[in-house]
Amino acid sequence: MKLRYNSFNYNTYANRGMTLEHDIEMANEYYRYNNIGVIYKKPTPITIAKVHYPSRSEAVIKEAYFKTPSTTDYNGIYRGKYIDFEAKETKNKTLFPLNNIHKHQIKHLKSILNHGGIGFLIIRFSTLNKTYLLPAERLLEFIENNDRKSIPLDFFEKNSYLIKDKYNPRVDYLEILDKLYFDGGKDERKN
Amino acid sequence: MKLRYNSFNYNTYANRGMTLEHDIEMANEYYRYNNIGVIYKKPTPITIAKVHYPSRSEAVIKEAYFKTPSTTDYNGIYRGKYIDFEAKETKNKTLFPLNNIHKHQIKHLKSILNHGGIGFLIIRFSTLNKTYLLPAERLLEFIENNDRKSIPLDFFEKNSYLIKDKYNPRVDYLEILDKLYFDGGKDERKN
Repeated sequence: MKLRYNSFNYNTYANRGMTLEHDIEMANEYYRYNNIGVIYKKPTPITIAKVHYPSRSEAVIKEAYFKTPSTTDYNGIYRGKYIDFEAKETKNKTLFPLNNIHKHQIKHLKSILNHGGIGFLIIRFSTLNKTYLLPAERLLEFIENNDRKSIPLDFFEKNSYLIKDKYNPRVDYLEILDKLYFDGGKDERKN
Repeated sequence: MKLRYNSFNYNTYANRGMTLEHDIEMANEYYRYNNIGVIYKKPTPITIAKVHYPSRSEAVIKEAYFKTPSTTDYNGIYRGKYIDFEAKETKNKTLFPLNNIHKHQIKHLKSILNHGGIGFLIIRFSTLNKTYLLPAERLLEFIENNDRKSIPLDFFEKNSYLIKDKYNPRVDYLEILDKLYFDGGKDERKN
């Protein structure tokens, strides 16, 4: 699966989250290709207002709007478990602003935990070149115990897991889940 | 979640699958609201070609195209299990044409089963007013053992499960999963 944003404009618009998003797409492709797990990014939710059809197979959307997502961007299955997460980048060097995550996304992650799934955030501090996996349990704890509108970096250092840069896949987030939820390393992966 | 197709044109285009899709959306809303399961329809995958931005919050997509989906339309979690399915309607009274399901969707369902998930199709014969849940295992068996380009109705009668019309939700497909995979009825549902 290639990223298929064709226009210069759209690239500019999407640029903020591009690198982490790209790394995760590459990891997901790697996981699927090697039969490690089946995880996809959901398509961008839009509201379609106008479609032209020169013919059925050639429908062209002529007017549509970006919608606020109801869920997180990524979900799938790994080692028999439902997994669900959101990924965000920040240029901030000391904190992650919580307005990057919508309230219903937090509610969604809570609900996933209640139903026995694995939920988390992947947060990249792009200026520091550090990418963390924060379990949804820790995120929810933070929100319940704080009125702050951002999560300080040191909370990540203490409560989340650094995803080390690798060659392939660059962002091997499932390796963290192995340690956290499956009591083992790569050898234990379902193949 | 409301269905938000605003234009007359788009409604016409989407009309074929509207009723079953609507019933499933209503069931999913019911399941989420009652904390029974968390299942969503994925947004329609599109390729965005042109976006105008009078301001960042007011982006308008001016040119986009429908993409062939890589996965099924629906996934989520129920009773701790990953579930994944596709839903289709046919007006045909005697068979379901297999060209309604893309090859990579079949491959996707196979992969979900391999990783320990629950996969299935929900097929409505709209003229007969019958809606069946066909486990992915049976679908894959059919495809492996047949060169036919359609599945006859009697295969559904023998290998799938009729979803009886109910008041709320109208299409209670999780009830079928209870019997098939969880060895029990509604009382056993995780609440």
